[in-house]
Amino acid sequence: MKLSIIRSACGSLRIHPTHPGSRIGGLSRRCLPVGPASRRLMVRTAATTGGGTNPKLAVNFRKQPQEDGGFECDTSLREVVQSTKEAMLALQRRNPSIQPLLAIIQAGEDDSLLEINKKIAGTIGLNITQICLAKECSEDEIVEEVLKLNEDPRVHGVYLHLPPASLTSRVLNTLKPEKDVDGISDLNMGRLVRGDLSKGFVPPIANAVLDLLEKHDTSLEGKTVLLVGGEGSLGVALQCLIERRGMVVFKSHWSSKSLQRQVMQADALVLLGAGTIDVPPSWVRPGAAVIRCQPSLETDAIEMFSKSGLGYLTAAYRTQNVVHNCSRWFQEQQYRPWHLRSLKLQPLTPVPSDIEISRAQTPKPVDQLAAEIGVLPEELEAYGRSKAKVQLSLLDRLHTQPDGKYVLVAGITPTPLGEGKSTVTIGLVQALSAHLKLNSFACLRQPSQGPTFGVKGGAAGGGYAQVIPMEEFNLHLTGDIHAITAANNLVAAAIDARMLHEATQSDKALFNRLVPSVNGVRRFSPIQISRLNRLGINKTDPASLTPQEVSTFVRLDLDPSKITWQRVVDTNDRFLRKITVGQASTEKGMIRETGFDIAVASEIMAILALADSLEDMKNRLARMVVGTSRSGQPITAEDLGVSGALAVLMKDAIKPTMMQTLEGTPVFVHAGPFANIAHGNSSVLADKLALKLVGRNGFVVTEAGFGADIGMEKFFNIKCRASGLRPNVVVLVATVRALKMHGGGPNVSAGAPLPREYIDENLSLVAGGCRSNLRKQIQIAHLFGVPVVVALNVFKTDTQAEIDLVCQLAKECGASDAVPCHHWAQGGRGSLELAQAVNEATSRPSNFQFLYNIEMPIVEKIRTIAQKVYGADDIELSPEAEAKIDYYNQQGYGSLPICMAKTHLSLSHMPDKKGAPTGFTLPIRDVRASIGAGFIFPLVGTMSTMPGLPTRPCFYDIDLDPVTEEITGLF
Amino acid sequence: MKLSIIRSACGSLRIHPTHPGSRIGGLSRRCLPVGPASRRLMVRTAATTGGGTNPKLAVNFRKQPQEDGGFECDTSLREVVQSTKEAMLALQRRNPSIQPLLAIIQAGEDDSLLEINKKIAGTIGLNITQICLAKECSEDEIVEEVLKLNEDPRVHGVYLHLPPASLTSRVLNTLKPEKDVDGISDLNMGRLVRGDLSKGFVPPIANAVLDLLEKHDTSLEGKTVLLVGGEGSLGVALQCLIERRGMVVFKSHWSSKSLQRQVMQADALVLLGAGTIDVPPSWVRPGAAVIRCQPSLETDAIEMFSKSGLGYLTAAYRTQNVVHNCSRWFQEQQYRPWHLRSLKLQPLTPVPSDIEISRAQTPKPVDQLAAEIGVLPEELEAYGRSKAKVQLSLLDRLHTQPDGKYVLVAGITPTPLGEGKSTVTIGLVQALSAHLKLNSFACLRQPSQGPTFGVKGGAAGGGYAQVIPMEEFNLHLTGDIHAITAANNLVAAAIDARMLHEATQSDKALFNRLVPSVNGVRRFSPIQISRLNRLGINKTDPASLTPQEVSTFVRLDLDPSKITWQRVVDTNDRFLRKITVGQASTEKGMIRETGFDIAVASEIMAILALADSLEDMKNRLARMVVGTSRSGQPITAEDLGVSGALAVLMKDAIKPTMMQTLEGTPVFVHAGPFANIAHGNSSVLADKLALKLVGRNGFVVTEAGFGADIGMEKFFNIKCRASGLRPNVVVLVATVRALKMHGGGPNVSAGAPLPREYIDENLSLVAGGCRSNLRKQIQIAHLFGVPVVVALNVFKTDTQAEIDLVCQLAKECGASDAVPCHHWAQGGRGSLELAQAVNEATSRPSNFQFLYNIEMPIVEKIRTIAQKVYGADDIELSPEAEAKIDYYNQQGYGSLPICMAKTHLSLSHMPDKKGAPTGFTLPIRDVRASIGAGFIFPLVGTMSTMPGLPTRPCFYDIDLDPVTEEITGLF
Repeated sequence: MKLSIIRSACGSLRIHPTHPGSRIGGLSRRCLPVGPASRRLMVRTAATTGGGTNPKLAVNFRKQPQEDGGFECDTSLREVVQSTKEAMLALQRRNPSIQPLLAIIQAGEDDSLLEINKKIAGTIGLNITQICLAKECSEDEIVEEVLKLNEDPRVHGVYLHLPPASLTSRVLNTLKPEKDVDGISDLNMGRLVRGDLSKGFVPPIANAVLDLLEKHDTSLEGKTVLLVGGEGSLGVALQCLIERRGMVVFKSHWSSKSLQRQVMQADALVLLGAGTIDVPPSWVRPGAAVIRCQPSLETDAIEMFSKSGLGYLTAAYRTQNVVHNCSRWFQEQQYRPWHLRSLKLQPLTPVPSDIEISRAQTPKPVDQLAAEIGVLPEELEAYGRSKAKVQLSLLDRLHTQPDGKYVLVAGITPTPLGEGKSTVTIGLVQALSAHLKLNSFACLRQPSQGPTFGVKGGAAGGGYAQVIPMEEFNLHLTGDIHAITAANNLVAAAIDARMLHEATQSDKALFNRLVPSVNGVRRFSPIQISRLNRLGINKTDPASLTPQEVSTFVRLDLDPSKITWQRVVDTNDRFLRKITVGQASTEKGMIRETGFDIAVASEIMAILALADSLEDMKNRLARMVVGTSRSGQPITAEDLGVSGALAVLMKDAIKPTMMQTLEGTPVFVHAGPFANIAHGNSSVLADKLALKLVGRNGFVVTEAGFGADIGMEKFFNIKCRASGLRPNVVVLVATVRALKMHGGGPNVSAGAPLPREYIDENLSLVAGGCRSNLRKQIQIAHLFGVPVVVALNVFKTDTQAEIDLVCQLAKECGASDAVPCHHWAQGGRGSLELAQAVNEATSRPSNFQFLYNIEMPIVEKIRTIAQKVYGADDIELSPEAEAKIDYYNQQGYGSLPICMAKTHLSLSHMPDKKGAPTGFTLPIRDVRASIGAGFIFPLVGTMSTMPGLPTRPCFYDIDLDPVTEEITGLF
Repeated sequence: MKLSIIRSACGSLRIHPTHPGSRIGGLSRRCLPVGPASRRLMVRTAATTGGGTNPKLAVNFRKQPQEDGGFECDTSLREVVQSTKEAMLALQRRNPSIQPLLAIIQAGEDDSLLEINKKIAGTIGLNITQICLAKECSEDEIVEEVLKLNEDPRVHGVYLHLPPASLTSRVLNTLKPEKDVDGISDLNMGRLVRGDLSKGFVPPIANAVLDLLEKHDTSLEGKTVLLVGGEGSLGVALQCLIERRGMVVFKSHWSSKSLQRQVMQADALVLLGAGTIDVPPSWVRPGAAVIRCQPSLETDAIEMFSKSGLGYLTAAYRTQNVVHNCSRWFQEQQYRPWHLRSLKLQPLTPVPSDIEISRAQTPKPVDQLAAEIGVLPEELEAYGRSKAKVQLSLLDRLHTQPDGKYVLVAGITPTPLGEGKSTVTIGLVQALSAHLKLNSFACLRQPSQGPTFGVKGGAAGGGYAQVIPMEEFNLHLTGDIHAITAANNLVAAAIDARMLHEATQSDKALFNRLVPSVNGVRRFSPIQISRLNRLGINKTDPASLTPQEVSTFVRLDLDPSKITWQRVVDTNDRFLRKITVGQASTEKGMIRETGFDIAVASEIMAILALADSLEDMKNRLARMVVGTSRSGQPITAEDLGVSGALAVLMKDAIKPTMMQTLEGTPVFVHAGPFANIAHGNSSVLADKLALKLVGRNGFVVTEAGFGADIGMEKFFNIKCRASGLRPNVVVLVATVRALKMHGGGPNVSAGAPLPREYIDENLSLVAGGCRSNLRKQIQIAHLFGVPVVVALNVFKTDTQAEIDLVCQLAKECGASDAVPCHHWAQGGRGSLELAQAVNEATSRPSNFQFLYNIEMPIVEKIRTIAQKVYGADDIELSPEAEAKIDYYNQQGYGSLPICMAKTHLSLSHMPDKKGAPTGFTLPIRDVRASIGAGFIFPLVGTMSTMPGLPTRPCFYDIDLDPVTEEITGLF
C-alpha cells in the first residue's frame, strides 16, 4: 500500500496511514477537513502496485444487460486491461523506480464512476492520488490544485472528475496538455482534429466508443454511424476519429424532427448525453450497433453510464493513457541525438570585433535550448533570457544514462599573449554539435570580472567561436563569483571579530554569549557540537563542561601572525595587496597586516570547482583551515561557526550556468579557480551534468588552464581524482607563434610589436618548437595513458608550409592526429577537421592512470611531478617548505594531492626558459595547503594573487548606450 | 511608405528604400540574396498607412463570373473592408502610435493570392512585412523565421503562405497562438472546436464561407449544407461553425459514390480542394448556393481561388483578424482590475518562525504573477522561479496609463527594536490586493546581506506579512548589491592606481599611455573628450594640445588626504572601518589611510534609488565626486574614465526585482540606501513602474526608513523632488511599546528583557507617547499637506483599552483615521481595517508641498528642517561645516536638497531624548555631499557606516540541509 503525503495549506505535514476500512482492495481513502475555515476536503490515496498481477484483484466484469444495445464490453475491456498491464510491467522492468500516477480532482464525494476508475487502476497496478474538493468549490480552488499537479513530477495524468460547469476554459487550459490524459484541453483537441496523435491524447471515452464500433459483429467500414447529441467537442472528436476509420458519420440533435428516420437508416448509433433521453428500441435497425455514452458528468447520468460496460472501458483507456504517457515521458529521458536548432553563421571578412559578432547573433531563448537537449523545465532556473542554472537533481534523474566521451583541451606552453584554448574548445563543440550533429557540450571557466575592466578584456572565446551574449559571460553572469566573495569575506570578518571578542572577554563571558540562555534554556547549536567533538569533549549539556573545557571550547586562540585567510574582491585593486586592518578606535588597537586577493583566488572557488554535490561542498567549506592557534592547531571555518552560513551563501552557485555558443550549441560556465595556487579547471559538476546530457555517443569538451604541464597535470591528478571521471582524449592546442618561440624565436611580450620572425615564414623555428615543447607536452599526456590530438590554432600570418610542418611533426612526436583549425575566422565549420579527428581518437583505447599514488609522501609526490612532468633533475626544499611539510604530515594532510604553483610560461620554474628545459633543480620556496579544496600547493617562485590596473585600463573604452542598452568596448 | 529594417544573419543592417517600381499602390518589395551561401531570400516590405482612407487606393472589385456559382462577394467584401477600416481608425484614434502589422512568410515568388492580400491590406492601411524564403526552404529555416516573428512585438499576425507540405506540426505549433491570425495552430483549432472564440481566431477562409452562406438569397437556417472534401481540420472548423449557425451539415468525399445524390439534395454546397475537381452544374439543385474554396495552397489551384471573390474576402477577413488582434492587444494594456490568484493563508497559533511560515507557502511562478498583473513576457527577466526583473520599457508602453494612488508608510520614532513598518507595508498590500481586490503593489528596500549574518536577521517582513521566499529576499536576490559593490570598488581601484601612475610617470609618458597610438592613429575616447570639455580645452586632436594642456589633462592630481571615496563590502566587517592600503612593495610606498563601508552605504546605492532612467543613472554615476585635487577641484568618476564601465556594471541592477507576498500579491524590491547618510527610500523606478501597473484605482505602498522625521522628510524633499511623484496619504506606524517609551517609560534595549511597563497595561504612558511623539510626527506630515492614517501595529501584550486609547488620541492629534493592525498574526485579513482607512483617506484632497525651496542657501535649508521638523530652536555649525558649505556653494552645489544624517532614536540629535523634545540647538558637526546622488548631507553626530559582528553572530544558527536544500536559522 502506497500512501501520499499531503502538505496542507498551512504548512504542516500529515501522513495518512493505511485505513483498515479500505473499500477496494489496494486502495485507501480519507476525507479530512483542513482547518475550520476550509471548505475543501483534501485527500490523496494511492492504489497498490504490489498486487498488480494478483488475480484476486482482478475486476469481475459482469455481462452487460440488453439495455446496452446488445453490446459486450467484456472482451475489449480484458484486452485493454491486459495490454496496459503489460505496458506497465515493461516500463517497470526498464526502470523499477517508476510508478505511474493518475491524479483525480473531484468535487464532492466518490461516485460509482470513481469507484470504477479506482477498481481498474487497482487491477493494473496504477497509483492514484485523489483530491476531493467541496462540491461547490470555486474555479480558483480547482485551478490551484491543477497547478500543483502540473508541477508535481510524480503525476503522469490528471482526471478532472468535475461537473461540466466547472470545466471552464480556464480550468481546462490550466492543465498541462502533457498531463491531460482525457484529451479535453484545447491544445489536445486541436491535435486530435488535425490528426497529430504523436503528442496529445485520444479522450478515453472516444477510444471506448471506437473500440466497440470496431468490435461490432459485422465490419462497419464504409457504413453509416449516426452521432446523436454530439454538439460539443467530444462529438467533434468522435466524428473525426470514426471518419478516419472509414465510416461515414451523420450527426443529429436529440430534438431533430428527422431523428427517427436517421436512426432507422444508420448502421450504428452513438448516443451522447444519453443519460436522460434514449432512442426507442423499435427505431433501431436490426443488427445495428447502439452505444450510449455520457460525456459530461451530470449527476443523474453517472449511475447509468457507470453501470454500462462503457464506464469500465473508458476507465481502462484512461489508465492506458496514463501508462503510455509515463512510458513516453520515460522514453524522452533516454539518450537521443538532440534536435538542436543551430544558429546560422555567416562569417564576415575581416572578422569584426568580438562584441560586434556576439551582438549580431540572437541567442536562442535558454529554455528552448534546454528543451532541445533534454533538460526538463523544472530543472532549469532562468536568469534572464540567455542564461540559466541547471539543477543538480538532473544527475539523479539520469543516473542510469551512460556518460558521453570526455575531452580535455590543454595547450603547449603559451606566449604571454595566450594561444586560444577557449576558442578551440568552443570551435570544437560548434563543429561537433552544429555541423556533425553529434551531441556535445563545452564546459568553461567563469572569468573574473577584474581583468575585464583591467587589461585582459573578455574571455568568452573570440571571433566566430564565442559564448553569447559575451557581455553576460564577462560580467556578473549568475552571481557565482559574487557569492564566493560574500562567503570568503564572511569568514574573514568572523576571524577578526572573534579575535577581538576573545581578547576582550573572560572565558565565562564568552561562554555566556556563545551559548546563551534562550527562554531559560542553554543549548549548543549543531555546529558547536561538531567543534566539541573535534576537541574530544563528548558532552551536550552546556552546564556539564568543566572550566577547562569551557576555555578550550570558547577560545580559538588564533595566532594573528598565522592567519592564512585573506579577504577577496573581484576587482584589480593592487593597493589591497598588503594592508593593515583594525585601525579604528572601536577595534581597540588589534591591528594586523593582511591583504586582499582577487575573488577567484579564494579557496571557496577551488571548492566550488571540485565539489561533487551540495553535501560535499558543505563538508569542504567546513574543513577549510583559516589559520593556526597559538598552540599550533589548525582552526577551521566550522570552528568559527560559519560553515552553515557559507553553504547557504553558496547554494545557488553550485548549480552550473548554461549558455550557448554563437551557433546555438550548449555550454556550461562554472567556477574558475586560479591555475597556479589552485587547479585551474572548470567544475566537476558541470562536467558530470554535461556527460549525462550528451549521452552515450556525445562529447563533453572541458578546458584546463595554462599549459598541459600545469592545467592538464592538475586535471588528471586532482580533478579526475575528485570526480572519478576518466578522460578519453586530450586536445593539445598549439600555435605557430608559440612554437617559433620555443624553437628559439625572440621574446614575445604583451603591448610590444611582434618581431618579424613571427610574421614571416620560418620553418626551422617551427620545427624547433615542435621537437621541444610540443613533443614534451604530448609525452606528458601519454604519461597518463591518454591519446592526444594536436589542434593548430591558425593565425592569418601562418603559411601553408608552416601548418603542414606542424601537423607532420606532431604526428611524428606521437599525436594520434594533428589538424589546423580555423574556428576564429569561420566558426564551427573551421573546426570540422578537428571534430572528426577527436571523434576518431575517442574510438581508440585510453588507458588512463594517475601519475602518483596519493599515499606517497608529500616530497615524493612533488618530486615525481617535477621530474616526470617538468623534466627537472630534482627538487630543492627551502627550510620553510620542509617545516610546512612536516606540519602537514603531522596534521594528517599527507595524503592530499599536489597542486604546483609554478609559472605557466616555461616547463621549468624559469619563465624565460622556453622549449623543453632540462638539467635544472626545481626550488620549492614554501608549501601551503587548501584543506577544504583538498590539496597541498608548493610555491615555486612568487605568485601574484591580485592583478593591478594599468595607466589606461580597458574601462576607458567601455560604455553603455542608455537608449539601445548596447555595450561597447568589451573585446 | 513605411519600410522595414532587416537585420541579416550576419548582423549588418540593411534598409530598403522605396522602390520606384512598386507594383501596387502603397507597397514596395525586394528580394535580395543574403550572402552567397544563403539559399534564402529575405525581404520585408510594408504597406503604407498614410493612404488608408485614400479613395485612390480602394480596390476595384470585379463582379465575379458565373463560375463561382452565381455568388457575389462584392457586398460582403465592401462590408468587411469598411468595418476593418473603421476598427483601424478607432484603434489609431485611441493610440496614434499603433501600427498593426501582418507578417507574411512565403516560399518562392509572389503569387496572385499574395497580391490580393497586399491589395486588401493597402486599402485598409495595414502594414505588411514579407519574408521570402526559397521555394525549397527547410523546416528549420521556416521555424527560425517564425520564432523571430513570435518575439517581435511589432507583429500582430503571421500568415504562413507556404505549401501544405511545409505546414508541419512543428511549424504550425511554433507560431505563437496569439499571432496565428489564420487560426491553424492546434490550440486555436481546439478553441474553435470547443466554441471558445474569446482568444483564438476563426480561419479567414471559414469566415468568408460563412459570410457567403449567410448572405444567400434565402436564409439557410435549418437547411442542409454539403461539405465536400472537408477531411482536414478546416473541414472540421467549417462544420462546427456552420452547425453553430443553425444549418445541418453533411460531409462527403470527392470520391464518394453517392456524391451526386448528396449534391442534389443539398441546399448549399461548400467545395473544399475545389481547384482541380468540380461538381457538374447539372447536379446542383436550382437556387442552391455553391461555394468553392481552396484551403491549402497547391500551386495550380491558387490561380483559380484568387480569381474568385472568395480570395478577396478571405484576405479581408485575415486583415480583420490582424486589426482585431491588435485591438485586443491594446485593450489588454489598459487599466483593469487584476485577476490575481491569491494564495490562501491559514494562520497558526502560536505564530511559527518567519522561515517556517515562508517555507510553508508555495509562491506562484513569477511569470504567472507577471501575467496576472499585466507585465508582458518580453518585459520580464526571470531569476529562478520566484523572482524576476522587470524591464523599464514598461514605462514607455504604459506612459498614457494614469498612475495609481501613492501611499507612504512611515513610523513614529522607534525603539531600538523597530516597530514593524515593513510588516505594516506588506500586510496592507495583502489586505488591499488579496481581500479588497484592489490592485496594489508594495515597494520595499533590498536589505543588506551583512546584518542577515550578523545581528538583525531577515528583513522580509515577519509573521503572516512577509515577502516570499524570504531566504531569496535576504540573500543575493538578483545581485543588485553585488553590482553596486563591484562598481564602487572599481572606482576605488581606479583612484589608487591613478595616483600611483601619476606619481611615477612624466606628463608625456602618461599622455602616451592614456591616448595611445592604435595602428598609427591617436584618438581621445569619448569619456576623455568629456573631461577636456570640462577643463575648457575644446580640442579633439591629441597632437594639438599644448604641454600645459597635456599636463592639465593627464593629471587629476588627487590630494590623498581629500579622497572621500571609500571601498565597500556587503559584510559586517568592523576591522575594515579604518585601514592602511598600498603597503606592498609594488605600490612603492604610496600608503594611505582609508576604510570600507557596508555596500548599501555606497553613493551608487543612493543613485540607484533616485535615478529615473538608465540615462539619468549613467549621468549621476559620471558626476560622482571622489575627492579633491591639490588645487581644490572636485574630481569625478568621469575624470577617472570609469563612468561608462560603471553604467555597464549597473545595467541590470537598474531594473526592479519583482517578488510576492505570502498571499501572492506583487512586490517590488529595489535599492536600499542608508537612511542617515543617504535618503533611506526604495527606488523611484520601482514606484513608477508599480504606479503604472496598478493603474488608476490601484495603490502603491512604499516605505521610508527610520521615523517620519527622517525617512518621510527625505521621501518628500529628496525622493519626490527627483521623481516628480506626489503622495496621496501617509500611513504612520506606531506601537504601544514605542508610545509608552515616548510617554516616559524606562529604557528599551536590544537583548535586555523588556521592563514590566511594556508588558502590563499602562494607559498614562500610552497617552503621554501619543501626545508627544505621535502628535509631532502627524504634524510633520501635515507640514507637507498630506493626510495621515495611523496604523497601530498590535502586539499580543497590548490591551484593548490601550489600543482604543491610541486610536482615539491619534484622531484627536489630527490623523484622518487610526486603526489597529493584526497582519503579523493574521496576514492581510488582519489589516483589512487599515486597507479600508487608506482607501478612504486617498479620496480626500492631498495638497502636497515641499518644505523648502531648493534655491534657499544651504544653511537655511538645514535650519528649516531642524526647526520645523525636529523642533530645534536653532542650528550650530562647526567650523568644518561652515567651510564645507562655503566650498559647496563655490562649486555650484548650493541648490541641492539636504539629507540629514541624524540619529533615528529621537526627534533631536540626542538618542535618549524621547517624546517631542524642544529647546535644543542642533549641532552640525560636518557637511558632506553626494553629488551624483544629488544631495548635501550634514552630519549631526557620528554615523557608523560599517556594522560589526557580535560574539555570537546569527550565522551560528544558519544552516542548509544538503538533501532537502532547506535553510534553517534565518528569522
